[in-house]
Amino acid sequence: MTNCIGKSFTLSIFGESHGTGVGGTVSGCPANLELKIEDIQKELDRRKPGQSSITTQRKEEDKVHIFSGVYDNITTGQPIDIFIYNKDADSSKYEALLKIHRPGHADYTYSKKYGHRDWRGGGFSSGRLTAPIVAAGAIAKKILRDHNIKIIGYTKAIGEIEAENIDFDEIEKNSVRCPDNEKAKLMENKILEIKNEGDSIGGLVEVVAKGVLAGLGGPRFDNLKGEFDKAFHSSGAITNIGYGAGSKARYMRGSEFNDQMYSENGKIKFYSNNSGGIQGGITNGQDIEVSLTIRPTPSISKEQKTVDIYGNNTIIKIEGRHDPCLCPRIVPVAEALMAIVLVDQLKQNNYLK
Amino acid sequence: MTNCIGKSFTLSIFGESHGTGVGGTVSGCPANLELKIEDIQKELDRRKPGQSSITTQRKEEDKVHIFSGVYDNITTGQPIDIFIYNKDADSSKYEALLKIHRPGHADYTYSKKYGHRDWRGGGFSSGRLTAPIVAAGAIAKKILRDHNIKIIGYTKAIGEIEAENIDFDEIEKNSVRCPDNEKAKLMENKILEIKNEGDSIGGLVEVVAKGVLAGLGGPRFDNLKGEFDKAFHSSGAITNIGYGAGSKARYMRGSEFNDQMYSENGKIKFYSNNSGGIQGGITNGQDIEVSLTIRPTPSISKEQKTVDIYGNNTIIKIEGRHDPCLCPRIVPVAEALMAIVLVDQLKQNNYLK
Amino acid sequence: MTNCIGKSFTLSIFGESHGTGVGGTVSGCPANLELKIEDIQKELDRRKPGQSSITTQRKEEDKVHIFSGVYDNITTGQPIDIFIYNKDADSSKYEALLKIHRPGHADYTYSKKYGHRDWRGGGFSSGRLTAPIVAAGAIAKKILRDHNIKIIGYTKAIGEIEAENIDFDEIEKNSVRCPDNEKAKLMENKILEIKNEGDSIGGLVEVVAKGVLAGLGGPRFDNLKGEFDKAFHSSGAITNIGYGAGSKARYMRGSEFNDQMYSENGKIKFYSNNSGGIQGGITNGQDIEVSLTIRPTPSISKEQKTVDIYGNNTIIKIEGRHDPCLCPRIVPVAEALMAIVLVDQLKQNNYLK
Amino acid sequence: MTNCIGKSFTLSIFGESHGTGVGGTVSGCPANLELKIEDIQKELDRRKPGQSSITTQRKEEDKVHIFSGVYDNITTGQPIDIFIYNKDADSSKYEALLKIHRPGHADYTYSKKYGHRDWRGGGFSSGRLTAPIVAAGAIAKKILRDHNIKIIGYTKAIGEIEAENIDFDEIEKNSVRCPDNEKAKLMENKILEIKNEGDSIGGLVEVVAKGVLAGLGGPRFDNLKGEFDKAFHSSGAITNIGYGAGSKARYMRGSEFNDQMYSENGKIKFYSNNSGGIQGGITNGQDIEVSLTIRPTPSISKEQKTVDIYGNNTIIKIEGRHDPCLCPRIVPVAEALMAIVLVDQLKQNNYLK
Repeated sequence: MTNCIGKSFTLSIFGESHGTGVGGTVSGCPANLELKIEDIQKELDRRKPGQSSITTQRKEEDKVHIFSGVYDNITTGQPIDIFIYNKDADSSKYEALLKIHRPGHADYTYSKKYGHRDWRGGGFSSGRLTAPIVAAGAIAKKILRDHNIKIIGYTKAIGEIEAENIDFDEIEKNSVRCPDNEKAKLMENKILEIKNEGDSIGGLVEVVAKGVLAGLGGPRFDNLKGEFDKAFHSSGAITNIGYGAGSKARYMRGSEFNDQMYSENGKIKFYSNNSGGIQGGITNGQDIEVSLTIRPTPSISKEQKTVDIYGNNTIIKIEGRHDPCLCPRIVPVAEALMAIVLVDQLKQNNYLK
Repeated sequence: MTNCIGKSFTLSIFGESHGTGVGGTVSGCPANLELKIEDIQKELDRRKPGQSSITTQRKEEDKVHIFSGVYDNITTGQPIDIFIYNKDADSSKYEALLKIHRPGHADYTYSKKYGHRDWRGGGFSSGRLTAPIVAAGAIAKKILRDHNIKIIGYTKAIGEIEAENIDFDEIEKNSVRCPDNEKAKLMENKILEIKNEGDSIGGLVEVVAKGVLAGLGGPRFDNLKGEFDKAFHSSGAITNIGYGAGSKARYMRGSEFNDQMYSENGKIKFYSNNSGGIQGGITNGQDIEVSLTIRPTPSISKEQKTVDIYGNNTIIKIEGRHDPCLCPRIVPVAEALMAIVLVDQLKQNNYLK
Repeated sequence: MTNCIGKSFTLSIFGESHGTGVGGTVSGCPANLELKIEDIQKELDRRKPGQSSITTQRKEEDKVHIFSGVYDNITTGQPIDIFIYNKDADSSKYEALLKIHRPGHADYTYSKKYGHRDWRGGGFSSGRLTAPIVAAGAIAKKILRDHNIKIIGYTKAIGEIEAENIDFDEIEKNSVRCPDNEKAKLMENKILEIKNEGDSIGGLVEVVAKGVLAGLGGPRFDNLKGEFDKAFHSSGAITNIGYGAGSKARYMRGSEFNDQMYSENGKIKFYSNNSGGIQGGITNGQDIEVSLTIRPTPSISKEQKTVDIYGNNTIIKIEGRHDPCLCPRIVPVAEALMAIVLVDQLKQNNYLK
Repeated sequence: MTNCIGKSFTLSIFGESHGTGVGGTVSGCPANLELKIEDIQKELDRRKPGQSSITTQRKEEDKVHIFSGVYDNITTGQPIDIFIYNKDADSSKYEALLKIHRPGHADYTYSKKYGHRDWRGGGFSSGRLTAPIVAAGAIAKKILRDHNIKIIGYTKAIGEIEAENIDFDEIEKNSVRCPDNEKAKLMENKILEIKNEGDSIGGLVEVVAKGVLAGLGGPRFDNLKGEFDKAFHSSGAITNIGYGAGSKARYMRGSEFNDQMYSENGKIKFYSNNSGGIQGGITNGQDIEVSLTIRPTPSISKEQKTVDIYGNNTIIKIEGRHDPCLCPRIVPVAEALMAIVLVDQLKQNNYLK
């Protein structure tokens, strides 16, 4: 189903960027979990627009409502429905675009698939649909915490600028969400520079899961990498996904790539983590390490060649309030998606009631 | 399900490398399609071992049997069951490995998940399970042909050596399946050199679908990239998957990445294909372009550090007949997986009865 | 998934009887369908409590809100989210029951499965969850209408009293929803009599689909009867489901049961409809005829023996406002479920874009 | 998927009555289960044709082959593929029927769905496809035994003749599989009488699961009754399915139907089992009791009116070797289906690794 992910712990989403709001329903959450509205709100605040000078200035408080499944801050075991009203849904800026296919967007493909598109913004394809994902991810993270699993996402690179001195404590201290404070400043400057040019820029987001048990996932069509990729690609902004050594594996010898093992105090350990924590589709207990290439934001104010819905050649300049770089706000989304997949795995593998 | 892929056109697989054989069941194939055993056999022959000096010398004729769903070379619309007997299942070489976790393999993760592993070879995790995938892919390709969709896979790079002068007619003329005949020779030499060192090497495989209709796939959790990745990762050998500009998108500006459009003779065309033919999860009618990073073969005869099933530190040298590079034989597998996913999409989108 | 039905046209539901409200998300609805709030409201009004003297006196206006997927009364092709606020959620009557398992209810089984139960009413197991089903069914019915398929549900029997002179035009003219006006009066009197005794009574609801195309459904595990049953049993009140001759088939000869065929003006017709329109899991173009046995309402004010949550034997008398007979209000629910399944089938079988 | 059942413990089937054979693949079976070929064969022997004078005289030894997933009589945790060759596939008797739609069969509906049908017999719709179901059921039963769950199926009635003195030990001692030895004789005579008339007769099969834990199944669309029905209806021969009081619930008062509870020695017990062991979709620990109405066999040698594939009116007399009553051979099939569903539930509910 287009709007649904998961097998035992599931999320279905709905909503549009310029409609009443966006939301989702989480099914399969264990009963008797403590869940406060703040647990969800604080994650949404990390995703919401208008956080800094390098994100869109669109103002949305993104206040979350829980419509079911939680009673007196305790989950009931039944579906949890979450809703977030749209506040700043000013679609006047979009009216000019009503009849033009925006390059890099899903306008053309949606119109081919559905015979029309939602001209008030991206509609269901809008980045705004990541809000219920982040909300569901907040629930998943609470569950993971009880299993001592921690998920950390960050911006690894913006264009050519790449983090080197990794300190996870730095991530939330800068607006780029970069674990290298010095590089973060360079990144911020770069993004502002690009923004002033009316352009956008791509980057690299990494997500790490720490404390994962060995034995999650499965072989073949249950390969955990496939499950993660399916989740991550619910965002249209990802062009490349690598695990562990990722694209570097191409240059490696088997003797170099293979994660050799040793035993220490009765525990099996590895000399390297080129497999990114997943072998034969199944976790081996090492950190899961994923690298996501994020394309530059499609909405730019520079002139672009395109066609209108009647098939006429035309020129477009997209005004409006857009992120010049998607990375900082994709970080909590990527974390949420990884958390949701891992909780589904815990449930399928009998670690949750 | 671990052994099943697809929603409307489905494949379930079974078998072990050193058991009776391997096979699969295809469900949802249209009735009244002409299907000869040769249609399947010729694709299996591209995957089978022992094709050249750079692949494993294990001898398997991989003769395919159709047990159901086809009558007088015509499909009945009911499940097609395919079976391939194992012939050269000499597991004596494996006996020495019976109690040692091979680095880079799924031995350790399988034992953590299932409480045991199949020591006669990879068991269900064996590359041999790609045979029924290739067989099902042959059926899918026949269906695609009727819709003028063509799938082309090839080795793009081995280590540092990368194809430059791409000529698809060259692919099947060299043992590496490289579309650049000159680079193919360099690749072959490189692989033989690595093989003599008792080591293995990684590479890059690309798969292209030509003639795809716009409108396949779907938004969000139905994103076609997610569907493809889930299929590709049924092979444990892939460490990175990119679409269109792939990992290069990181360095690009929006004005550079966006595939700008124009209209010509009433047809919408694109100035570039950085999105790899998929926008917002949905095909736009351009070629689908996927790039798969293939890790070096895990089985190498060089000494490696590891642990046995009792947790003792030990050293392993894997004798036996292994591919020094997986790329040439993964090409037909990757094509098959892309074909299977596309036929499932055609069916879900009402192009097949 | 517990809260989800369908494959291509899907519904996921959420909510509790005594929480904020109940709702659901419909995915896979075709774009460009005219859909007004009244289309949904009028079906909800058929299900809502307080319609007559023989239904519960609980007052709920059950006003429906559409949060997404519809713009200017036209569907967008994206998920349609529906929400209905709870108004008359007086749970004070339930407080006495907080710690006692009500016989015939899911109290005990929920507590065994989830380790707790929602004492404010049935929670997710409440009949109130049929409201979003009826809402989704209203959308499905609109789609069916465009394919000339009509669904008619009615009360066939209450206890021993059974409709004989069937006139579908009578159904909505009496409070029992019985197509036999005379028997309807007897039924109403019977229900009031039972209500005054503090008891409840069972009955028979039938649902018919007219105008169905041949070829829907599928063999084996796709058998359309299985699909319908799975949908109908989302209500906990159904104890028996029959198709066509149903339970009478037991007494029949093959020569009597088989629906013999003839051709008339180039159209294939049947001499009987003992198969209820489904053969080998697939529709044959005759009316689909289903018969649902509805158990008596579990909540009764008569004394019953039971246990409390501590395992002590006790006596319960359930006060509150309950339907003495479920049939009249289950009719629109059964129609909705049949409509949802049929639209999913139309979509899977390529009759909907 | 047409040929697949289950979520965590799954079965996919394939084959035709008059092709090479029939088979299936079981996925999700726990590793390290002892499984001998005899465990499966003995169940198949209960289903195979030619067992007695009241079943078809078609001779099939139905020898089962295991192609994967079992090594040295121990399951590996990977897919178990089962195959049964067709031996007595004499389709000459069918040739006359090649172009005529047999009443009561799926000939007409298959031809409407697939644009053709398998004239060599029922093809995929053949009762022969229940053989792999019984084989998979044998595996499921072994698993259930380890959880002290026992499944008992039997013929409750043939036409008007109904078992009264139920003694489960009698079931396998008569050819009807009836637990009332005296009534069994009457049933046998009745069936032979019907057979001599060239006709067939319907009946009632009941299946009981003993020792089931409370808490299996789920609410709403996961209702265990829905899961069972979906499985049972993979046979086209069932016209009606009831649980517990079943169709009798229609006549009952709430005070009579509700299964009142009491506590005894710290265990919760029930005064009745009108719910058939399932409340709100979830097991309550009582026996699961299902009643299946079996229609009379469609293939009869009496003359019947029908049409040929060109739409001409004609008369058909079906010669060949057919069961005059399906009940005796459906008993092991119904048991198998219940066992498969219950194992899937155990797995989903964390009782199996």
